[in-house]
Amino acid sequence: MMDTFKVETRRREELVDITHLAQEAVARSDHISGVVFCFVPHTTAGITINENADPDVQRDILYKLNKEIPQNDNYHHSEGNADAHIKASLMGFSQQILFENKHLVLGTWQGLYFCEFDGPRQRRVIIKVIPLD
Amino acid sequence: MMDTFKVETRRREELVDITHLAQEAVARSDHISGVVFCFVPHTTAGITINENADPDVQRDILYKLNKEIPQNDNYHHSEGNADAHIKASLMGFSQQILFENKHLVLGTWQGLYFCEFDGPRQRRVIIKVIPLD
Amino acid sequence: MMDTFKVETRRREELVDITHLAQEAVARSDHISGVVFCFVPHTTAGITINENADPDVQRDILYKLNKEIPQNDNYHHSEGNADAHIKASLMGFSQQILFENKHLVLGTWQGLYFCEFDGPRQRRVIIKVIPLD
Repeated sequence: MMDTFKVETRRREELVDITHLAQEAVARSDHISGVVFCFVPHTTAGITINENADPDVQRDILYKLNKEIPQNDNYHHSEGNADAHIKASLMGFSQQILFENKHLVLGTWQGLYFCEFDGPRQRRVIIKVIPLD
Repeated sequence: MMDTFKVETRRREELVDITHLAQEAVARSDHISGVVFCFVPHTTAGITINENADPDVQRDILYKLNKEIPQNDNYHHSEGNADAHIKASLMGFSQQILFENKHLVLGTWQGLYFCEFDGPRQRRVIIKVIPLD
Repeated sequence: MMDTFKVETRRREELVDITHLAQEAVARSDHISGVVFCFVPHTTAGITINENADPDVQRDILYKLNKEIPQNDNYHHSEGNADAHIKASLMGFSQQILFENKHLVLGTWQGLYFCEFDGPRQRRVIIKVIPLD
């Protein structure tokens, strides 16, 4: 009941809509209601929820994070991705979404986003359906 | 077992104490212990935990978020609320709180706060009691 | 099934690796798989996940948070720790980690960190093992 999905990112920083992965995990399960637990097992990528309508919202999230937390800022970590570690902790590494009648309980404009901060890379998302029926 | 509560906000930015909503959901349930899952189904409002004693703490959270992420900062999103989307992702869209003997397991000074970043509006919080007894 | 662990911090700001506390809670439980729920019952300390290899990553997280959210910045809260309240909300107060076969499901480089922002103090972390077997 724990699925690992691959996420291919194409830029250093990118928000990738993975709402369908959570929905598919629910659809494949034997359960009607519960919680979908979505986890990013990386340290330079995170996961968040935000608007799925205007792509400029995703662009602004990356723009502003980058403006305040640029790639170079006298960090100590020598791999050139300290900013990515910080951004990942700010977004978080897991999101939980309820589901009822096999549908995700999300607001009208909400989507689930994988947050790449040190790509492009092949990444993973771990999704577990926690039944409550 | 999934409740939707209305939250009326009165300013563009406001932290609204909703600890009682989580406590009421627990009280109304048939369960002694478990997790209360609190979810904000919006994209310009979030949810956090913080100090419930000095209201200046809530004021400082909003003051500092606003200082670093002002409403206007060359964003691309044209609705004038890009800052609210960013702030919401920083606070997060869900909080989980344990309960034991029908009481929330919170620190002495902790309260649960709805974070309005693009009000005033009528908002919603979804609360689900996950039993562990 | 709910454990409270003491965490002694030694500096005003410090990331303390507490991955072993989550692992121990799982080991002591009767369960093979589930979720470990880790909660910080304070308002000037948080909890996050990040890299456990190069300590400079932890140092950079604190460095950058401090650079953007310094201890003094015309806050209203009079206790001199408004910055700590803000940083705690940014990191969050809980982390959930899956476990399978009695092992935490974490990425290779991931560790669980208690985030002290107003130490040194004796702090607490509450850990509950939620069985899914």
